[in-house]
Amino acid sequence: MKLLLKIKYDGAAFHGFQAQPAVKTVQTTLTEAFSALFGEKVNVTGCSRTDAGVHALGAVVSVEAAKKNGECEKELPIPVTKVVKAANSVLDGDVAAVGAALVDDGFHVRYDVVKKEYIYRISTSDVPDPFRRGRVMFYRREISDSAFSKMKEAAGYFIGRRDFASFMASGSKVVSTVRNVFSADVERSGDEVIFKVSADGFLYNMVRIMTGTLLSVAEGKISPEKIPEITESKNRSLVGETVCPDGLYLNEVFYRNEIRWVK
Amino acid sequence: MKLLLKIKYDGAAFHGFQAQPAVKTVQTTLTEAFSALFGEKVNVTGCSRTDAGVHALGAVVSVEAAKKNGECEKELPIPVTKVVKAANSVLDGDVAAVGAALVDDGFHVRYDVVKKEYIYRISTSDVPDPFRRGRVMFYRREISDSAFSKMKEAAGYFIGRRDFASFMASGSKVVSTVRNVFSADVERSGDEVIFKVSADGFLYNMVRIMTGTLLSVAEGKISPEKIPEITESKNRSLVGETVCPDGLYLNEVFYRNEIRWVK
Repeated sequence: MKLLLKIKYDGAAFHGFQAQPAVKTVQTTLTEAFSALFGEKVNVTGCSRTDAGVHALGAVVSVEAAKKNGECEKELPIPVTKVVKAANSVLDGDVAAVGAALVDDGFHVRYDVVKKEYIYRISTSDVPDPFRRGRVMFYRREISDSAFSKMKEAAGYFIGRRDFASFMASGSKVVSTVRNVFSADVERSGDEVIFKVSADGFLYNMVRIMTGTLLSVAEGKISPEKIPEITESKNRSLVGETVCPDGLYLNEVFYRNEIRWVK
Repeated sequence: MKLLLKIKYDGAAFHGFQAQPAVKTVQTTLTEAFSALFGEKVNVTGCSRTDAGVHALGAVVSVEAAKKNGECEKELPIPVTKVVKAANSVLDGDVAAVGAALVDDGFHVRYDVVKKEYIYRISTSDVPDPFRRGRVMFYRREISDSAFSKMKEAAGYFIGRRDFASFMASGSKVVSTVRNVFSADVERSGDEVIFKVSADGFLYNMVRIMTGTLLSVAEGKISPEKIPEITESKNRSLVGETVCPDGLYLNEVFYRNEIRWVK
């Protein structure tokens, strides 16, 4: 059996998910904490390699005892019902465990994902808020109701199985740039406009470029009904800017079979 | 005329309000920003010297051009209606200006306060939340409805003009330990219990000791109806612990005459 953890983290406190020398990353923080907790070196694998500054509300990682000389992995020494509490007792408060589960050894936390959902928070307030610093994009201007309606219309055009090459950071290498977007919508909450999008997978910077494109739509630089055309064009220069990572949250990750999380 | 600013700050980003050498404080951050903005050295005075880690949602500071050789102060070079925007353009995002006002030269931002309101946020969630780290106290246990009712009753006993010597950090020096508490109550919001208290002034650590006392009440260590007696006793050892600064916010400051803030 393999141990999964559902985690939350404040991206502003980390240099991204993936382990790198000499900087604090989510992966190294988790690896150190679980190695200490389990009394032996563990391997931590993530569902997603979020960039520096990007947050997670419901990311998933697998934790396995490192194999030695090809021998069988040891069972982890803590029952799954106690893992969340034990994890939070050793974890840095910038990342927290919110659920634990056991899955078959064949399960892969990254390759078995069938759907991921991201949200992007845009604050329209004209004064900055120290308590949301690093946690929203401060757009610093209003988004009128008509601009908001246009964003909503534009977001609708993202839905479907399409080639999203226009919405990928240039220079990224992937086998295919086709992704299936299941849902895409904007909503208002207080002074924020929140873009929520789910897909079977995302290209590098895809949500941040989609958000920048929606802001170009709000600003009247791109008409909503042009979205299919500029998607079709596969031309990065026709879409909006890549917005900052601050407002981006990995909200939820879905697998083929529902995972039974225990607290 | 004297310039006032209403400010917000994330206390976790500062070593308290008051200027100190070699560390980031609210006062030094504001002094540097406004000196740069006004093109000459300014003096910044605060309504309250909050401790390291303590936040403000509505603190007030006055900003004056430093006097040279006893000469009249210069007028500040920016109209009051433009100050908030100008301030936020130079200020660190950990502190933000939310209002500006002009008052008579005789006005004193600290001595003229007639009422201050603080809130203290206690999260009862059993899992820590990275997005509230440093911004709430993580109590990590539930507060039952009956414990909450007892806290409410105990808070009510704080109200009135009393000698609050029991609720002052030992070693503090003040002329009088009598304060007039105008309101004190607890409320629930999500997984949080929030203590809100207003008074004509507060002794050193008074709100944090009051909060610790309310938690002792919740835990059954102190009966609510004992609050008048232990207040009367002036014995610091009879009340609760001083809780951490993380959950404490200076919420609002009131002056005799209402200040007309402009954004």
